[in-house]
Amino acid sequence: MSASATQFTVVSVGGGVTAAAGFRSAAVASGIKKKAGALDLAVIAADTTVAAAALFTTNLAQAAPVLVSKRHLTSTSGMARAIVVNAGCANACTGEDGLDNAERMAADVATALGCPTTQVLVASTGVIGVGLPMDKVVAGISQAARALARDRGSDTALAIMTTDPFPKEHAVTVETASGSFTVGGTAKGSGMIEPNMATMLGFLTTDAQVPPALLHRALVESARDTFNAITVDGETSTNDCVFLMASGTSGVVIDEESYPALLEGLLAVSRELAIGIVRGGEGATKLITVNVTDARTIEDAQRVAKTIANSPLVKTAVHGADPNWGRIVAAAGRAGVRFDVDRATVHVGGILLFENGLPHDEAAPQAEQHLRGAEIRIDVALGTGGGHRATVWTCDLSAEYVRINGEYRT
Amino acid sequence: MSASATQFTVVSVGGGVTAAAGFRSAAVASGIKKKAGALDLAVIAADTTVAAAALFTTNLAQAAPVLVSKRHLTSTSGMARAIVVNAGCANACTGEDGLDNAERMAADVATALGCPTTQVLVASTGVIGVGLPMDKVVAGISQAARALARDRGSDTALAIMTTDPFPKEHAVTVETASGSFTVGGTAKGSGMIEPNMATMLGFLTTDAQVPPALLHRALVESARDTFNAITVDGETSTNDCVFLMASGTSGVVIDEESYPALLEGLLAVSRELAIGIVRGGEGATKLITVNVTDARTIEDAQRVAKTIANSPLVKTAVHGADPNWGRIVAAAGRAGVRFDVDRATVHVGGILLFENGLPHDEAAPQAEQHLRGAEIRIDVALGTGGGHRATVWTCDLSAEYVRINGEYRT
Repeated sequence: MSASATQFTVVSVGGGVTAAAGFRSAAVASGIKKKAGALDLAVIAADTTVAAAALFTTNLAQAAPVLVSKRHLTSTSGMARAIVVNAGCANACTGEDGLDNAERMAADVATALGCPTTQVLVASTGVIGVGLPMDKVVAGISQAARALARDRGSDTALAIMTTDPFPKEHAVTVETASGSFTVGGTAKGSGMIEPNMATMLGFLTTDAQVPPALLHRALVESARDTFNAITVDGETSTNDCVFLMASGTSGVVIDEESYPALLEGLLAVSRELAIGIVRGGEGATKLITVNVTDARTIEDAQRVAKTIANSPLVKTAVHGADPNWGRIVAAAGRAGVRFDVDRATVHVGGILLFENGLPHDEAAPQAEQHLRGAEIRIDVALGTGGGHRATVWTCDLSAEYVRINGEYRT
Repeated sequence: MSASATQFTVVSVGGGVTAAAGFRSAAVASGIKKKAGALDLAVIAADTTVAAAALFTTNLAQAAPVLVSKRHLTSTSGMARAIVVNAGCANACTGEDGLDNAERMAADVATALGCPTTQVLVASTGVIGVGLPMDKVVAGISQAARALARDRGSDTALAIMTTDPFPKEHAVTVETASGSFTVGGTAKGSGMIEPNMATMLGFLTTDAQVPPALLHRALVESARDTFNAITVDGETSTNDCVFLMASGTSGVVIDEESYPALLEGLLAVSRELAIGIVRGGEGATKLITVNVTDARTIEDAQRVAKTIANSPLVKTAVHGADPNWGRIVAAAGRAGVRFDVDRATVHVGGILLFENGLPHDEAAPQAEQHLRGAEIRIDVALGTGGGHRATVWTCDLSAEYVRINGEYRT
C-alpha cells in the first residue's frame, strides 16, 4: 500500500449521530414509554438521499421494523433519506398489523421529508407481542419531523434507551491527505429489566462520500470486530440492527484506496459504542476482554472467545474475583475447535495461570487482585502455530442479572 | 417385529449399582474430601471379567482418569472387571503425575482382585489442577477392595457426591419371555459449589449377557435421550463419563432381537438418574422439561430444545414464573435451525401462548399459575411437517447459582 494514500489520523470529537455533516435529528416524548415525559421516538434524517447500509438480526423471529427496513433498503439498492426509531415497544410478533404499523411509520416520515417511503428505515425496541399505540406514534413523528436539528443528536441517544443505565454516543474525525471526514453514532444495549427486551440498536452516520456497496462492506467488517464481538448473555434479539448512512457532505470520497481510513473511523466509533453496551449490560459490574490468539483461523479464535465469554461459570468466577483458570480451560475445550490443551496458555490480567497442561497456582493471589478491579483481561493462546486471533468483550454474571430477568411481567 | 421376542415389562426395584446380580461394591472415607468421615472412594467390581462400555466427555481438556479408562477399554476391546472412583479431586490438568496416579489406582484394584490392570476403569470428580493425595487413595483402595459386598451399593451413591444435594440411584427389572434381568446404576451431577467442579459421572450395571459391541450401542442410544439430554448450564466437564458393565449372571442373553428390552431398561434407569441430576442442579428450584416437536430431523429438534434449555433469559423467566413466550420464541429462532416462526406454536404447561406469529396473552395468567409449580413443561412445535422430536431437561437459573459459583476459591 502506498503511504500517501492510506495515511490518516483518527481523532475523537464530541457528539454522536449528528456529528457528521449533512444529518439532523430530533427526539420527542410521544408517550410510548410509560414514564411521562421520557423521550421515546426519534428521527435521524439526511439532508438529501444518501448511501445507506444495514445489518439485521440473524434470529429467525424478526420484528416488523426489521422486515420493513430490509425490504426498503433492498428496493432502493442501498439508498436512504431517514431512520425512524422508537423505544418502549418492539413491534415484534405482531403479525400483519405490525407490518402495517412499521410501514406507516416510514410513510409518515417520508411525507414530512418529501421522499419515497422506501427511503425511510424503521427500528423499534421494547416489549415483544404488543402492538404500537399508533396515535401516539403518528403524533410523535409529526412533531419530530418539524424539530430536526444538527445539535440534538444526544436526545436520540436518550430516546432509544430502554433500561440501559446510560446513553451511548461517540464520534471521531478522520484526517486524511485528501481532507477530513467525520463518523459518529449512537447505540442502545441489552438492558432487559422490562421482560422480552434484549435488543441492540446502532445508528451510524458519516459525511464521507461512499458508494453503497463499499459502505456495506465497511459496516460488515467493522461490526465483525465490534458489535458482533460483544456478548452479554449469548441471546440474539428479534429486533437487533445497525444502520449506517453516508452523506458525502465532507467532500472526501472513499474508494478502494482510501477505504482503510473509513474502516478505521467506523471501528473507532463502533468499538466505543459496543464496549459501552457491555459496560451497561444487565447487572454488569465488570468489563471482561477475552483475547484468543494463535488459533488456526479467525473463526476458530472467535468461537473459543465467545464460548469463554458466554460461559456462566467463567462469568460468575470473574464476578467473585476467582482466578479460576480451570473454568476457562474447560470452556475453551468445549468450543468445538481443535487445539492441544497441553500447548495452550491462560493469562488473567497478564498473569500466567496455566501452561504445559499444568496450573501456576502460586500466581493465583496476584490474578485475584486483578479480578477485584473493574476491567478484566483474559488471554488464551491456543498454541496451534496458526497465528490468528480474536477479541470478544463481555461482562460478569451477577445475582442482579437474575433478579432483573426473573421479575415477572405485570 | 415379532411380539413374542420383544414383549417385556420394566418394573422399578430397589437399589442401585449393585442391584444387578454379579456385582459388588464398597465405599470408604479415605480422607480425600476435607470433611472427616465423608465417603469419597468406591470400587464397583464384577465377580468375573465382563463386557463393558463407556462414554467420555467431548471436552478437549480431558482428565487423567478419562484418558486412562479410554486406553484400558480400548486395549481390552470392551471387557472390564472393576471401576474405581473418587470424589474430592478431579485429577485433571495434573500432567504426567496425574496419569501415573490414575494408572496406580487401576493397578492397585487389579492386584486386589487378581485381574490385569487394563480391566480396571477409573473415574474422578472434584477440584481441577490439584494432585491426588496418593497415600490416602492407596490405603482407601486397599480397604475398599476387602469390603466388597452385594448390599452396599447406596454407599457408592454417597461416595461419588461432591455438592450434589442428594444421592441418585435407581434400578429396574426387565421381565422378558426368556427370563428377567436387572439394570441398576448411580450417578452424580453438576453441583459446583466448590470451584472447578462440573462433572457428571454415571455407573450402570446389568446382569443381562451382552456382547461388548451391542452393549456400547445400547449405552450410546440410551444416553442420547437421557444423560445427553440434560443441561444445567451448558458446560461440559473435563471428567464426565458414564460406564456400563454387563455380568450375564441372569442368564438372559441379549441379541439383536431382544435388544429393545435392554435399551428400555437402560433408558428407565438413565432417565431417572439424569432427571435427578437436573433436580439437584446448582440453585435449581424447578425441573423444566422442554419438548420440541415437528422438526425436520432429530438433530434439529435437539438443537432447538438445548438452545431453549440453556437460554439464561428463559431460565430466569421460569424462575420468576413469567409466562414469557417471547424469550422462548427468540431462543428457538437463534438455534441455527430452519423453520417458519409463523407456523410454530409455544405451549407452557399445556397452555397455548403463541400461534400464527401472534401471542395469546389472555392465557398468560393460567400459564403463570403453572410456572409457580416445581415441574415446568415447555412445548414448542416447529411446524415444519417433519415430525421429528426431542426432549431436554433443565432447571431454572436462580441468584443462588450465581452465589454458589461466584464464591471465590480460598
